[in-house]
Amino acid sequence: MDNCVFCKIIKGEIPAEKVYEDENFLAFLDIKPVSTGHLLLIPKEHYPTFLEMPEEIIQKIMTRAKHLMGAIKMATAADFVILSVVGIEIPHFHIHLIPRHKNDGLANFWPTKKYSNNEAKIIAEKIRENLNLYGNNS
Amino acid sequence: MDNCVFCKIIKGEIPAEKVYEDENFLAFLDIKPVSTGHLLLIPKEHYPTFLEMPEEIIQKIMTRAKHLMGAIKMATAADFVILSVVGIEIPHFHIHLIPRHKNDGLANFWPTKKYSNNEAKIIAEKIRENLNLYGNNS
Repeated sequence: MDNCVFCKIIKGEIPAEKVYEDENFLAFLDIKPVSTGHLLLIPKEHYPTFLEMPEEIIQKIMTRAKHLMGAIKMATAADFVILSVVGIEIPHFHIHLIPRHKNDGLANFWPTKKYSNNEAKIIAEKIRENLNLYGNNS
Repeated sequence: MDNCVFCKIIKGEIPAEKVYEDENFLAFLDIKPVSTGHLLLIPKEHYPTFLEMPEEIIQKIMTRAKHLMGAIKMATAADFVILSVVGIEIPHFHIHLIPRHKNDGLANFWPTKKYSNNEAKIIAEKIRENLNLYGNNS
């Protein structure tokens, strides 16, 4: 897609430190890493988000993510590796793989809250209803 | 596994607001949600992390995550839904699905840094080496 920075990296129009490439996927170093070894894994085809990705591509990219995660963990001697699909800033689906070390000083998560009264039951019911609509098939 | 809070939820020994359940997977509301509708999706079999999960289970759970993500997005009128495998506090593999709204005030990400000199090339090469060792097969 024109003007997509990840499509340009795939086409070689923007340089990147590539770590893995095959017919369908590309993994490269994030140029603004959270930690050393932070990778981005993308499908070569342009899908805006997880929701537009065909299940077959989801299955393949997540298998690839597992392999990359193992390699990152060893290469960086990480205690664990985060897998995260967070953003919509770049609307080309991408998985962050981020090596973490205990005591690396990164906050563990976002702040959390508590549900009040029936709030939990109400939202759970809404999700169940939409799950039936959206596709509960496996 | 004994003393695993998620195994206890699966067995019904600890209550949870369940949203989806089948033979292999369970999704329920996180009791400390980042936002209303924040789900945890877990395999019923106890795997400590992503790295121990068989590829077949990874493929199935990520397909299920996509369906749940669509339902959460609609139920909460979210702008986007984060998928994140972050933690090791509870060593039973779990996927966070977190609805986000623009201007919800949550920080977008961790702080980032820049690579110095050859740091990027060196770590990329190390990951490539380990990828070959760990399993570059598809």
